[in-house]
This record gives sequence, structure tokens and C-alpha cells, in this order.
Amino acid sequence: MASNVVIMAAGKGTRMKSALPKVLHKLAGRSLLQHVLSTVEALDSRRTVVITGHGAEAVEAAVAAPGLQFVRQMPQLGTGHAIQQASPALDVAQQTTLILNGDVPLIRAQTAQALIEACGGQRLALLTIELADASGYGRIVREGEQVRAIVEHKDASDAQRRIREVYTGMMAAPTALLQRWVAQLNNDNAQGEYYLTDIVAMAVADGVPVVATPAAGETEVLGVNSPAQLADLERRFQRQQAEALMEAGVRLMDPARFDLRGQLSCGQDVDIDVGCVFEGEVQLGDGVRVGPHCVIRNARIDAGVQIAAFTHIDGAQVGSQAQIGPFARLRPGAQLAEEVHIGNFVEVKNSTLARGAKANHLAYLGDATVGARTNYGAGSITANYDGVNKHRTVIGEDVRIGSNCVLVAPVAIGDRATIGGGSTISKDAPADQLTVGRARQVSLSGWQRPVKKAK
Amino acid sequence: MASNVVIMAAGKGTRMKSALPKVLHKLAGRSLLQHVLSTVEALDSRRTVVITGHGAEAVEAAVAAPGLQFVRQMPQLGTGHAIQQASPALDVAQQTTLILNGDVPLIRAQTAQALIEACGGQRLALLTIELADASGYGRIVREGEQVRAIVEHKDASDAQRRIREVYTGMMAAPTALLQRWVAQLNNDNAQGEYYLTDIVAMAVADGVPVVATPAAGETEVLGVNSPAQLADLERRFQRQQAEALMEAGVRLMDPARFDLRGQLSCGQDVDIDVGCVFEGEVQLGDGVRVGPHCVIRNARIDAGVQIAAFTHIDGAQVGSQAQIGPFARLRPGAQLAEEVHIGNFVEVKNSTLARGAKANHLAYLGDATVGARTNYGAGSITANYDGVNKHRTVIGEDVRIGSNCVLVAPVAIGDRATIGGGSTISKDAPADQLTVGRARQVSLSGWQRPVKKAK
Amino acid sequence: MASNVVIMAAGKGTRMKSALPKVLHKLAGRSLLQHVLSTVEALDSRRTVVITGHGAEAVEAAVAAPGLQFVRQMPQLGTGHAIQQASPALDVAQQTTLILNGDVPLIRAQTAQALIEACGGQRLALLTIELADASGYGRIVREGEQVRAIVEHKDASDAQRRIREVYTGMMAAPTALLQRWVAQLNNDNAQGEYYLTDIVAMAVADGVPVVATPAAGETEVLGVNSPAQLADLERRFQRQQAEALMEAGVRLMDPARFDLRGQLSCGQDVDIDVGCVFEGEVQLGDGVRVGPHCVIRNARIDAGVQIAAFTHIDGAQVGSQAQIGPFARLRPGAQLAEEVHIGNFVEVKNSTLARGAKANHLAYLGDATVGARTNYGAGSITANYDGVNKHRTVIGEDVRIGSNCVLVAPVAIGDRATIGGGSTISKDAPADQLTVGRARQVSLSGWQRPVKKAK
Repeated sequence: MASNVVIMAAGKGTRMKSALPKVLHKLAGRSLLQHVLSTVEALDSRRTVVITGHGAEAVEAAVAAPGLQFVRQMPQLGTGHAIQQASPALDVAQQTTLILNGDVPLIRAQTAQALIEACGGQRLALLTIELADASGYGRIVREGEQVRAIVEHKDASDAQRRIREVYTGMMAAPTALLQRWVAQLNNDNAQGEYYLTDIVAMAVADGVPVVATPAAGETEVLGVNSPAQLADLERRFQRQQAEALMEAGVRLMDPARFDLRGQLSCGQDVDIDVGCVFEGEVQLGDGVRVGPHCVIRNARIDAGVQIAAFTHIDGAQVGSQAQIGPFARLRPGAQLAEEVHIGNFVEVKNSTLARGAKANHLAYLGDATVGARTNYGAGSITANYDGVNKHRTVIGEDVRIGSNCVLVAPVAIGDRATIGGGSTISKDAPADQLTVGRARQVSLSGWQRPVKKAK
Repeated sequence: MASNVVIMAAGKGTRMKSALPKVLHKLAGRSLLQHVLSTVEALDSRRTVVITGHGAEAVEAAVAAPGLQFVRQMPQLGTGHAIQQASPALDVAQQTTLILNGDVPLIRAQTAQALIEACGGQRLALLTIELADASGYGRIVREGEQVRAIVEHKDASDAQRRIREVYTGMMAAPTALLQRWVAQLNNDNAQGEYYLTDIVAMAVADGVPVVATPAAGETEVLGVNSPAQLADLERRFQRQQAEALMEAGVRLMDPARFDLRGQLSCGQDVDIDVGCVFEGEVQLGDGVRVGPHCVIRNARIDAGVQIAAFTHIDGAQVGSQAQIGPFARLRPGAQLAEEVHIGNFVEVKNSTLARGAKANHLAYLGDATVGARTNYGAGSITANYDGVNKHRTVIGEDVRIGSNCVLVAPVAIGDRATIGGGSTISKDAPADQLTVGRARQVSLSGWQRPVKKAK
Repeated sequence: MASNVVIMAAGKGTRMKSALPKVLHKLAGRSLLQHVLSTVEALDSRRTVVITGHGAEAVEAAVAAPGLQFVRQMPQLGTGHAIQQASPALDVAQQTTLILNGDVPLIRAQTAQALIEACGGQRLALLTIELADASGYGRIVREGEQVRAIVEHKDASDAQRRIREVYTGMMAAPTALLQRWVAQLNNDNAQGEYYLTDIVAMAVADGVPVVATPAAGETEVLGVNSPAQLADLERRFQRQQAEALMEAGVRLMDPARFDLRGQLSCGQDVDIDVGCVFEGEVQLGDGVRVGPHCVIRNARIDAGVQIAAFTHIDGAQVGSQAQIGPFARLRPGAQLAEEVHIGNFVEVKNSTLARGAKANHLAYLGDATVGARTNYGAGSITANYDGVNKHRTVIGEDVRIGSNCVLVAPVAIGDRATIGGGSTISKDAPADQLTVGRARQVSLSGWQRPVKKAK
């Protein structure tokens, strides 16, 4: 069913104690408002209106997208006042208008859809939740299926205080009625604010049915008002993601120590050890094993790859059966073919390694092309940067680069070449030959060791 | 009391969504089935029969051991059918047969023993557990001490549904009776399966006492059917291990962030910081301190050793009072004597370091022997691999290896030798002397720096 | 209100299974006893007496401070006996004496103050707590506001066993009465111990009012008797600290995976990712982001600094907008100005880097001064140690140090100098020039690679 969607995103979030507008705070790597907008994308929203206020420019810049309309609420005089600002922007051809909160990020699309359908352009549909302890919340007073009122805690009778069903702040209303009702709101109350919930009484007075749609669970109606609430929701969301992955067959060594801030797609028989963090878009092929305490961002890891502890991957592709880490770092543009080995304290950036190439110890490969089966020695470095320009190092197949070499780019090493340990290579090295740049080794028999100086 | 033990391990574990048979999934580093078999080792089992089915070959290969018998259940037509297959393999000289599940890994030996004794070759003894919410489970209907029936949830009266004692799937039965009973099972039910629990009615009909033995707790009767259940059981098991270690005096900074997949033996006053993972056999001596986020596998760490954050140890021995890390990696064959220091970004493999030797910064020691008090400079590398063969580097006592040296093995450095920084040493260096291989330093006054190229 | 404070710290803590006296075990980096002493500092204590016993010398040495008095309890014959030893040391001019436990570390100053005021030099004030399950504890039997008795569990009637208010072991008493009462204690009981709680009956008999002051929560009255209890209290304390930081606006990605062992002060909009450990005194400026799994000790990190995963900082200062890590290590004396970059596998010790200097890959900077905008190449090392003395390396502004260089200190590199890759620099390098120490590169056409040797 098509509808308008209005998202209230004008609040400051004083308790966040942040320079950032509240709805731009991040949950699992995306802003609260982005979460809501992503959910709205799954609905048939014909017009989506975001009400901004505090930090309006920053909020609008952060989420601007084709088809998204912004209205500003300045100053912020309550939820009813917010909808008054959005009212002219609604598409009256849409009979239903859904109202969401930009700081309630985990509302499910199914729930929003159910709310739209409960409204059906004819009823005022309130999203509600049953709480174990409802004190402080506005209670839903029913008469059979119909809602008679939302009664604030302070105004509630003892019987009403025993009601555990409360209003969540989200509703769907018939568009034209909503426009008429919000136009009639007043701020004759202690706070001098316009309350959207006052339209419930108007609906009842107008004989418009008011219905309550229950949320599926507490998590989807929780709002963020403080860093502690943000952290709590982060954990709930991470747990949801972990459970969905496990449901699909992914083995997590500890679901409470798993963080995904983006999308993770996994093949069969993937094992993820404790303390791993995934960001952006990550693909793990069949049988991939990720060791403890790894950070992996925007990467494609093919089948059978073993990633050992303390590995940091960002913007890289790793071919099947490769072995990475521990203590390895793959940076953007690292493209590793099958069976490549990258070992401890090795950094690879913007480099292509062909099948079976190895860099196992304390090394840097930047802006390099490495041929198949080549062994890149411990401590060796591509000097890819002359201080102003980056240059490329091209290493052939079956090459053996010794230890602690410097390859001064631009430079090419021929197939099957051997580079002696400790060599600085600034000219191309021919194929098949041993190339060295090494001073003669001398020993000084009369030499005396330094002695400890008095301080 | 001696007995037969039958372990049902034929299930596929569809919800695991894995190519691996269910009982081969790992809990704390060992397969579910291995956990059960280890527990059976503590019993006086005269014949242990494992019933395999899905992935039978893989399962049998994984756990094969002298004295272990396998029978195959193909296809899998229920628990009663499974025991029918095992029936001919039972040792009839053993009056009691214990039936365990290969996917219930944490059953305790004491509980299994109690079950065997409750049977005593004469009674049918069912292992039961009281659940807070028993819905869905088969209820234990008692008459005094005697069990009258196991009633499935769907068949239970309201009164029976209030019973919280349920059957766990494990039992001990008189061997000869068990053989007779399972031969009489039929599959006249909706699923067309043979249910082992049907023997309860047979026992009651035969006047054989049926008794219930309560499990000590929920954890020991939990089965694994999904990655989420596996993760839950992993956490329960890790918490048990953590509590046992703390009981013995080990100080864990956070028991919820401690993983042990094997055996850890600790001396007095051992401190283990957050996020550490132990695998295989690890010994920590008195006063050892392990910093945050370390991974330690198959290692002996002697008294007073300090291991700083992000240290990775596998297959190594570390002498007393040594200092390791942060960011150190000890690989198999690293043998460090007392007071050795291994610092950040240093890798040691198959090397022996004598008392007080030091490699504090960015270095690789592979296939090396290092004498007492020798200082191995920052960035220095043993070039132990010529591309086809591994060679040994032998460094004497009180040697000083400068920075960024390459020691091209095979090579020997004499006692008290000094190797100048940046030297590549390919011939033996004499004792007491300074040996260098270093080009003359020259400065070019007319030299111009590269300039930025247009792209 | 001024008072005496007595801290009982004589216990052995057998269940700790440690060579360390119980009160010296650490919670969040400080001993249990230090926690109590810090709390006492917030009170107007005119005389603080610590009762030591087991490990008395170690305890006294660990916490000795001006104004702190120690009395010894040898042997330990109960809480009453402990106060008997402290009695002569009390300042009789102080009408109130507060009694705390050295192994109850998280008692709040407000609670202790409330207890002192409840005593007011005239009443016996007991600190109590309501427990969900009070079994095993001494129940507080009241008559209106007045306490009639503390009844031990074993002596309690059924009605008394339903009381959930229990004694916590802490009290405040009129000083002179306390002295008189403890002098009258006897040990006519099964354990042959002198119980301080026996003074409740004496107070009642003397017509001295006995009042109960409730603790604010369970955490502040929990004692430590075992490593498991210590770990539990550590987690509670860490959670309290995390909540206080979040309340102040700090964003913790997971409050359950945050450890602070000291003081952390944060500016606005600080983000701290999972698994971080802070020790000592740490300051984080506005907008600092700390990535996952970092360890930071005694450091000042200025505004806008980005610290990537697996960074280890100890005793360092980092200027605003600097970028550190991943896998970086800053050691004591590292002083980094604004916009400095320290990258992976780089160690900086006792070195000053001016604005915009960079050391991005696999490098060691020790005892060095680095000028503004200088780039320190991958794999380069300051050879600051000749085996007995440390020397300084001074590098000018806008210098480019190539890859895998060794700078043999003492040495100076002039402004705008370039050092060729692979050079060992043992003499000063002039400004503006290219300085190299590099052997000629030669290729050997007839060379044969080594062949695999039979083993």
C-alpha cells in the first residue's frame, strides 16, 4: 500500500553532549537517520519528508537523495508542531501518511507496513508496545479493539497505570484528516508545546476509528537519547546481525564479540573467531576462517582463505587458499591471487600478487606487481615514493628477492632473477641472473668496543 | 561399574548448514564427538560403540581409536533404529549399556556414572532435567520414585504439561533387555520412525523398574543443532573453564573474554588480561602475566615471564623472567632461555636464544642459535632460506648485531663480535672484531630533487 | 563531620590462592586497599588506622602515606579482636569512628559519610543492604527505626529468616563507647573468635540507639574473597566507569569491552571502539577516535587525532590531527606534534617529531629529533645504541630518508637533505644534498641458483 512517510529528525539530542545532530550519530557505521531511510526504501513511499531542525544543514547534506524532501522546523515546538511544518509537503493523493522518528533506527519494514495497512487511509493507527514496566509512558486505553485515548502517566488512574501497552511515538494517519487535525492543535499546556498525540482525541471525537498495532519487539521502537542508549542499541543490533548470520550457517566463536558495520556475505562453513570487526562490504567465500581480533573492511576473500589473528584488511581482494597474517595488513588496491602468502608485519598496498607469491616477514609492497611463485624476502621494501611521485615496481615470476632489499621504483626485476640480500636495486635486474649491490665484508681486528660513558 | 557405551552420532545436522557432519563441529577446539569420547574414557566402558551415518567415513576417520567400534545407521530411521544397529555389537557380558549422544558434548562423567549405577544392570535409568519452561519436551510421569512414562508434549494432559522434569535423550539400560526391547520396536507413527523412548512402556509392561536420574545442570544435557546453539554452548563451556581456573587462583581480568581450546595449566599468581586465546597445551609458570589480546598455543612459559599485548606464540618455550611483546611473534621451535627479551614486530622461528639475549625491534630470527647476552639489532634479518634450502645462523655470546643487517646463512658470528649496522654478512665473522659490509657514504651537492609529475 | 576511620586489612584471603595479601590484589589497576584509602581521602578523617596482619609489611609498604597509622593484628582472632588492636590508636577527640573493610573496595564516600552522620558520635550506625536472597547473612532485626539485633542465619527464627536486610560489615560507632565495648568482648563461641557484631547487644543494653543506614547498592558492599569475586567486581567497576563516561558524552562502541585502569578524561565527541584498554592517566581531546583493540597508557592525545586498530601507546603525547596506526607503538618520550603520521609496524621511543613529519611503514625512531614535514622511509632505523651508550639522531625539516636506511647515532641530517634508500649513514649528512652509501649494483649472468639438498 502506497503512502507518504514523514520522519521527524529535528531534535538536538542534548543528552548526547555532542556537536553532531542527534540523528547523525552512528549505529553500526550508519547514521540513525540512514537506518530509518533504508527501511523506508523497502516501503512503497510515494513521498518521503524529513523534518529537520537542529543542525538542519548537516542533516540534509548527510542524507540528501533524489525524491527526498526536507522541511524545517525552527524552533522546535513539539511533535505536533513538527507535523504542522510537514503538512503542506504531503502528497494528498496518498491516503495514508506514516510518521516515523529519525532517532528510532531499528523500526522494521514489516512493522511500518503493518501500520500503514492498519491505517488504510481510514483509521488512525498507533504503533504500540507492551512493556514489563510501563511507568512514565503514555498508556493505551482501549475499548475492545478500539483505542479510546493515550493517557500520560501523570494523568493516569490506578487502573490505567496497570496498563502495560504504551504508545511508541510512531503512527499512520489518513492524510487529509492528519492535515486537518494538526492544524487544530494548540499548545495550552505546561510546556507550551504542540503534541501530536492530541489528535487521538480529535479522531475519537470525529468518530474515526483508532487502532493499535503492536510492535514485534522492544528493539524496533527504542529511541536514542544518550550515548548509553546508543551503545545499548548498537549491541542489540549487533546481536540481531550475529543471529541472522548464524541462522545462515556462519559459525561465530562469540556472538557477543562480533561487530558488523555494513554488509557481510558468507559462503558455507565460514568460521569467525572472537573480537573481529567487519566494515563496509565484505564477502567471505566457502570455508574461510578468520582468526581472533581481525579488522576487515571492503574486501572480497575467496574460498578457503585462512586469515590469522591481528590481520587488518581494507579495500583488498584475496584469492582462494591464500594465507594471511598474523599481523598482516592489506591496504586498498591489494589484489592477491590464489595461494598467496602474506605473513607477519607485512604491508601490501595497491599491489598485485600472482598465484603462489609470498611475502612472509616484515616487508612492504607498495605499487608493485609481483609474478607467480615469487618469494619476496624478509625486510624488503619497495621504495615507491620519491617524495613527490609514486612509481611502480614490477617483479617477474619465480623471482627470489633477498632480505632487507630496497627496490627503488620505477624498476623491473626479470623472471627467475635472484636479488641478493641487503641489495638496493635502482636499475632493472635481468631475468635469470643474480643481481646484488653489496659492499665487501671486512673485519677490523684492532677495533675496540665503545665504553660506557659517565652521565 | 563396567558397561557398554553407545554413542549416537549419525545425524546430519541440517540446521548447521555445513558440509561437515554435525558431530565433527568444534567446541573449544575439539569436535562434539571427541568431547563425548573423552568423557567416556573416564568411565569403565568395556565396549564403546559409535553409531555413524551422515558423513560416516569422515566421522570414523576423525575419531578412530583402538577399542572403538563403529556401526553404521543407513538410512537414519530414528533413535530406536540407531540402537537396533548397535545391538549386535554390544558386549552381552556387560549388564549395563549407557546411551549417549554425539551432539551433547558436555555430559559429565559423574552424571554418566550415576546413570550407569542407577541402572545397575536391572533398571531402566533415564537421565532427566527440570526445566523452567518444559513446553515441547517429553515429560517424565512418575509414580513415587518410579517413572511410569515419558509423555510427549502433544499427548500430555494439562496436569502433565505442568510437569517440569523432562527426558534428556540419554539413558542406561540392562543390556539383554535393551536388545530384546529394541528388536520389538515398530514405526507405526506419523514420522515412520523407530523411537527408543518406546522401550519405557515395554519396561513398565515387563515390570522392570524405570528410574530417573537428574542431571546436575542444563549445560551438560544441551545438544547442538545450529550454529547459534553451538555458540551458546561454547560460551557456557568457556565460562566453566574460566571458573575452574579462577577457583584454582588464576586471575582473569574478564572471564567473559577468555577462550581456552585445550589445556591450560597455571602456577600461582598468574594474571591473564582481556581478550586472550589459548589453544593446545599451554603451561604458565608462577607469576606469569599475559597482557591483553594475546594468542598462545602449545607453549611453555616459565615463571615470572611478562607477555605484553598483541603477542602471538605458537609452539615455543619461554624461560623465566623473559619479556615478550608487545606485537611479538614466537613460532614453532622458538626456545628462549631466562631473561630473553623479544620486542615489537619481531618474529622468532626455530631458533634458540640463550640467557639474556635480546631482539627488541622489527627483526626476524629463523633457524638461528643466539648466544647469551647477545643483542640482535633492530631490523636485522637471518636470511635462512636460499629459495630451496634452509640454513642455520650461529651467533655467539655477547655479540652485537647492528641495525638492518642481513645474516646470510649458513654463517657464524664469533663471540663478542660486533656487526656494523646495514651490513650484509655472508661469510663467518670472527670473534671480538668489528665486521662491516658497508659502502662509502657520499653526498652529491649538485643533486636536484624529483619534481611532481603531471598526471 | 570529622571522624576516625579504621580499615580492617589483616586477612589472608586463603581462597585467593595467592602469595599476595588479599588487600593488595588489584581492581582496575589499584589495590583493593588503595580504593578504600582513596575513598577515605574524600571524608574528613582526622585519623586513619589500617589494621594489618597477613603480609603486614608488604601491605604497609604498599600504601604508606603521611598521616596513615598502622596497627598489627597478630594472630587474627576475629573482627572484634581487630578493633581491639586499633582501639588505643583512635583519636578520642573524634566522637565518631568509622569502620571499613580493606577488601570491600567500592564503598562510596557518600555512603561512608552518611554512616558517620547517622552515628553522630551518639548512635551505633550499621551499614545494611537488602538482598533478594539473604540466606547465610546476619539479619537486621528492627523495632521501628531502631535496630534490636543482628541475628546470624543459623540462630534466626523462620520470621527472621524472611528479613532481607543484612549487615554489611561496616559501621560507625561513638569512639569512647566503641573502645569500652570492644574491651568487653569475649570469645565464648565455637570459633573462639571475638566478634565485633557483639557490640550491638551491648549498645542495646546500654540504651544507646542502634540505627541502620542502607547502602545505595550491592556493588559498594561486595567484598573480595576469591579470584571469581575479584573478576566480578572488576566488571561491575568497569561498567560503572563506562556509564559515567557515556553520561559525559563519550561514545563507547561496547561498554562491556572497555577497560579503564586509572583516569581517562575526554573532550567532546570522542569515539572508543571495542576492546580498548586505558591505563594510568590518559587525556583524549575533542573528536579523538580510538579504533578497535588499542592499549593506551599515560598519554595525552590532542583533538582530532585518529588512532587506528591495534595501536599501543605508553607515555606519549600526540598532537592534534595526527594519525596513528594501525599496529603502531609509541613508547615513553614519544612527542608528536600536529598532523604527524605514524603507520604500521612503526615504533617511536623518546623522540620528538615536528608538525607533519611522517613514519608510515616498518620503522624505528629512538632518541631522535625529526623536523617538520620530514618523511622517514619504510624500514629505516635509528641505531641509537652502541651496546653501552644511547646517542641522539637529529633530522632536519623537509628531509627525505629513504627506505631501509640506518642512521648511526650520534648523527645529524641537514634540512632538506635526501638520504638514498639502503644507506647506512654514520657521518652527518649536509642540508639540501643527496647522501647515499650504496654499493654498485652488479648482475652475474653465469650464476646458478642453489639446488635442493637431500636431507
